Amino acid sequence: MAEMSVTINDTLEILLEQKKYNAIKTVLSTMNPSDIAALLEDVPPGELLLLFRLLPKELAADTFVEMDSEAQKALVQGFSDTELKSIVDDLYVDDAVDLVEEMPANLVKRILSQAEPDTRRLINEILKYPDDSAGSLMTTEYVDLNPGMTAGEAIGHIRATGVDKETVNLCYVVDDKRKLLGVVSLRSIILAKPDMPVSELMEQNVVSVNTHEDQELVAQTFAKYNFTALPVVDSEDRLVGIVTVDDAIDVMQEEASEDISKMAAVTPTGKPYLRLSVFDLWRSRIPWLLILMISATFTGMIITHFENALATYVVLTAFIPMLMDTGGNSGSQSTVTIIRSLSLGEIGTKDTMKILWKEIRVAVLCGLTLAIVNFGKLMLFDRVGFKVSLVVCITLVFDVLASKIVGALLPLGAEKVGLDPAVLASPVLTTIVDAVALLIYFTAATYILGL
Amino acid sequence: MAEMSVTINDTLEILLEQKKYNAIKTVLSTMNPSDIAALLEDVPPGELLLLFRLLPKELAADTFVEMDSEAQKALVQGFSDTELKSIVDDLYVDDAVDLVEEMPANLVKRILSQAEPDTRRLINEILKYPDDSAGSLMTTEYVDLNPGMTAGEAIGHIRATGVDKETVNLCYVVDDKRKLLGVVSLRSIILAKPDMPVSELMEQNVVSVNTHEDQELVAQTFAKYNFTALPVVDSEDRLVGIVTVDDAIDVMQEEASEDISKMAAVTPTGKPYLRLSVFDLWRSRIPWLLILMISATFTGMIITHFENALATYVVLTAFIPMLMDTGGNSGSQSTVTIIRSLSLGEIGTKDTMKILWKEIRVAVLCGLTLAIVNFGKLMLFDRVGFKVSLVVCITLVFDVLASKIVGALLPLGAEKVGLDPAVLASPVLTTIVDAVALLIYFTAATYILGL
Repeated sequence: MAEMSVTINDTLEILLEQKKYNAIKTVLSTMNPSDIAALLEDVPPGELLLLFRLLPKELAADTFVEMDSEAQKALVQGFSDTELKSIVDDLYVDDAVDLVEEMPANLVKRILSQAEPDTRRLINEILKYPDDSAGSLMTTEYVDLNPGMTAGEAIGHIRATGVDKETVNLCYVVDDKRKLLGVVSLRSIILAKPDMPVSELMEQNVVSVNTHEDQELVAQTFAKYNFTALPVVDSEDRLVGIVTVDDAIDVMQEEASEDISKMAAVTPTGKPYLRLSVFDLWRSRIPWLLILMISATFTGMIITHFENALATYVVLTAFIPMLMDTGGNSGSQSTVTIIRSLSLGEIGTKDTMKILWKEIRVAVLCGLTLAIVNFGKLMLFDRVGFKVSLVVCITLVFDVLASKIVGALLPLGAEKVGLDPAVLASPVLTTIVDAVALLIYFTAATYILGL
Repeated sequence: MAEMSVTINDTLEILLEQKKYNAIKTVLSTMNPSDIAALLEDVPPGELLLLFRLLPKELAADTFVEMDSEAQKALVQGFSDTELKSIVDDLYVDDAVDLVEEMPANLVKRILSQAEPDTRRLINEILKYPDDSAGSLMTTEYVDLNPGMTAGEAIGHIRATGVDKETVNLCYVVDDKRKLLGVVSLRSIILAKPDMPVSELMEQNVVSVNTHEDQELVAQTFAKYNFTALPVVDSEDRLVGIVTVDDAIDVMQEEASEDISKMAAVTPTGKPYLRLSVFDLWRSRIPWLLILMISATFTGMIITHFENALATYVVLTAFIPMLMDTGGNSGSQSTVTIIRSLSLGEIGTKDTMKILWKEIRVAVLCGLTLAIVNFGKLMLFDRVGFKVSLVVCITLVFDVLASKIVGALLPLGAEKVGLDPAVLASPVLTTIVDAVALLIYFTAATYILGL
């Protein structure tokens, strides 16, 4: 598909040079909003507005939503008031909120002034919810039914009000105080006899989230229950909005990318790689490199402290990299596994003791395996003598044990005190584990080699 | 929600002891299949079948699908032929295929013998598609319409055939050779006038995937276009099935978890952490620990080779951990960023030169920043002298540069030759980067300190 876009891109370039606007219009109207958006993002700013104006009206808002914030900004700046109003009116409220959150203050004012009063009120309400909460993610354009309606009346209601709703596939049944009573799918309404009451069709056991719940829990709920939309309620269980599955997918991808970035000591940027400038990349990477470089001073200090021992047994130096790497790898295996399980909601801090006990047993198994293999290698190939081999292998066992315990406790501890496990755990891990490896190593050397 | 499950669990335990089966039945019937499944997975094997048999018929198959394969296996073994047949008949074809893939051979035979001949044929056809392909992910239970139908007739068709379909929210329009002509949403059918022909309602520009396409591309397509179902076509563009968004979400989570595991040198298990035995965890972690331990021998060999230099300048040893860590961190920042961008389809191997050039510039910026900060620290605090400071800082610059180049090229190279970037890149990276760091360090030391 990537190759196809390139071809269309070239075609449009040529058509644009030849000013064949009608042909461009026809070509664009056969395309999907996401594809048009990807195409327009690559167009020089001067041509962006020109091309966007060629879009058929029904595609314009859908395409606008799919574009990145740079392109949206350029468009909003270029739009006439009428154009801006027409786009803002066509946006779903959740998309309008996303737009307002991304734009600089002067454009926000212009956007809000063009929105219908009702829409403006809704946007302002949603903006009050904390970032990354269910409330900030939801849209207020859902279909509500009342329990007394029949299936036939429900279809009539959907026909009359459904055009502007983000989804009609799931409809929500509320009482006159807007308390959420149940959920009913369009499918079951269609398949039911027309005189069947909605109250008998609806699923009463409806899973909902509170407006203030974290977006990660929203995503987990979608993954667990296979919904295509999820109702959002306030503290009094009144329906205030819905989150649709496409937004939940964005959250999942975003949260996974963020976790992955943080595990690799990179500050998440939330932007695609190719759109990041060299300076953006530098800024997202240098803080952790600096912190970790400085903190590696401790490791250096430990080595300096045992300088004399190393001068006597220079052979010991050769195993420092292996011991540090093995500790680092063992620890990050545990940390990363636990961070991911926390993100997926598979484990929680309540499982700490269970996890710790499991990690300890795995660590002993891993440590012994590594020590046995390495002992054979040291005696038979490296021929460094029994005592040095013993020091290295004893260090391996305790190093793996310590690394896995630290690796398991760091993310669980971070979660417990409300910090992000991914930020704290992986980068800090290396520093601690390196120091621990060296301390164990030199302690073992001191006792066994009698330094 | 986790806490709520615990309470229900305790309640059921007590009701089970008191043999109050009717009460259990009532409690279960108010619950969601996913929650019942989570509950039943924790029940002792002896009670599992007993409790499962208390489920209302309409909940049984939905709950069965949500259970892990251990529990499914126990149930299939305990089912009578009639029970098994009733469950298998209620499964969607894609779920039946998943079940057959997870079960041991003897149970597969029993399951297939209880399936309707048509279902059996479909299961066997889907089983022929490669693992992780769109074909293996799809279901054949979709609604097809023909272009000549009116909206009213389409509703009649959906009412008549929709009960067994996995989704009716999107319907697919095919000609008499089953060639895919378009897609139409139930929403637009409902909102249209009853005499409107389907051919005018349908979206002709329909995005589809081929049966042999990788499941990662399927997931990317869902994320890009915000669909709730995606049609799967054969090589002649004939519709053979659909993938629904819930299965795409599972793929996304699975692929992200797999990437994360591999980046941390863990063989992916595909199972939740708490369900993994100590032995499972050992087996998923020990191979990479062994490989990396053995490969760290090279690093040891380099140090041994420069043993005399180190004996003369023992202070050099103190900086080995910092240089190795900085190289490792710099490289993994690049590798992990690129692996994730490849997974999300944001970049491809065609972008290699662009990426390389960007990484080189970022590396120079990062390397210089680190070198300047470190030079100040070495001269003012550590007071190791100008020449040693110079050796360490020159190493830093070239080390970061080499690490980021290797870190960028490894995943792109793996992708190019068709290997999994995550498997190859992260674990191999440490070994290469450690060796490179030491070689640069000792070369710089040889020239500047005149060893």
